[in-house]
Amino acid sequence: MVVAEVSIVPIGEGPSVSKYVKKAIGVFKKYNLKVETHAMGTVLEGDLDEVLEAFKEAHRTVLNDSKRVLSTLKIDERKDKENTMERKLRAIGEL
Amino acid sequence: MVVAEVSIVPIGEGPSVSKYVKKAIGVFKKYNLKVETHAMGTVLEGDLDEVLEAFKEAHRTVLNDSKRVLSTLKIDERKDKENTMERKLRAIGEL
Amino acid sequence: MVVAEVSIVPIGEGPSVSKYVKKAIGVFKKYNLKVETHAMGTVLEGDLDEVLEAFKEAHRTVLNDSKRVLSTLKIDERKDKENTMERKLRAIGEL
Amino acid sequence: MVVAEVSIVPIGEGPSVSKYVKKAIGVFKKYNLKVETHAMGTVLEGDLDEVLEAFKEAHRTVLNDSKRVLSTLKIDERKDKENTMERKLRAIGEL
Repeated sequence: MVVAEVSIVPIGEGPSVSKYVKKAIGVFKKYNLKVETHAMGTVLEGDLDEVLEAFKEAHRTVLNDSKRVLSTLKIDERKDKENTMERKLRAIGEL
Repeated sequence: MVVAEVSIVPIGEGPSVSKYVKKAIGVFKKYNLKVETHAMGTVLEGDLDEVLEAFKEAHRTVLNDSKRVLSTLKIDERKDKENTMERKLRAIGEL
Repeated sequence: MVVAEVSIVPIGEGPSVSKYVKKAIGVFKKYNLKVETHAMGTVLEGDLDEVLEAFKEAHRTVLNDSKRVLSTLKIDERKDKENTMERKLRAIGEL
Repeated sequence: MVVAEVSIVPIGEGPSVSKYVKKAIGVFKKYNLKVETHAMGTVLEGDLDEVLEAFKEAHRTVLNDSKRVLSTLKIDERKDKENTMERKLRAIGEL
């Protein structure tokens, strides 16, 4: 189980990119993942392979509609403790 | 007004870093900023100078307690539209 | 063809992580990718699937030797122009 | 002394952003910093305050010419060892 963060940004389709971001979030929601969107990206929780598949499909979906895409994926994985959004937020007193 | 995302990670103090993250969030909350923490970082909203000051103090605060720190700051600033967490989330249908 | 940037950081194995970074770079070099390492990460050039495979293997290789790993992948892909490290650097006068 | 990585991306000025990236690199070079550009960003070495100033000026310079800018700054600072690009690259056998 990994906690990940994804951001997919089309470069060159004008400064308003919400249409593209919505599509990317729609892709994430098709997968067997917990999906939580904040103002700077989307946090995913699930299996590493599932996260990588969802990232690739979201990237390609946005590239389909635009000339250039800059996509970022951050993976947090640990073996010593259960790794979930909930446990992470509880540990810092934010839940 | 900018929307920013910050992550401050001590390297080398063991795999559990919540104690340090809590301190960093405490620093952000002293500033005149809107602060929203998610499982992979903290989103800030406010003036660019205020964000840069808060980022620097949080980085140095965590470095004070550890040997090495890796800090990341992402700034989203635009001139064509009001730029707030609320507007961004509303535009993608997540609010 | 994509240009990508990868960083693989073990959290909790002490402040010196070069042993782990070396192993990750060794993984990248097994793939059919152009690999250029700088002081803050490694730039990769090649097919998207190849980059994702290499990223996953490097992440898992470092996780094998440590308790927690934070890995970052940034993908730059465009359809309007050839996308290579060389063309990008030439366009900004750095080659 | 910190080693940092910066990337300044205008969103909405078309897919080709080299004109803006060049200007940002020009800003970095005015500061008392070691500057090394690669295909996905620029690595800086110097004092933390100098890095933050240069980052802010580069961000604002690009925003002056465009509607929206997404800027990223990553700071690596450590107290146990000298922290330079050269030492980091030497430690992983890339110099």
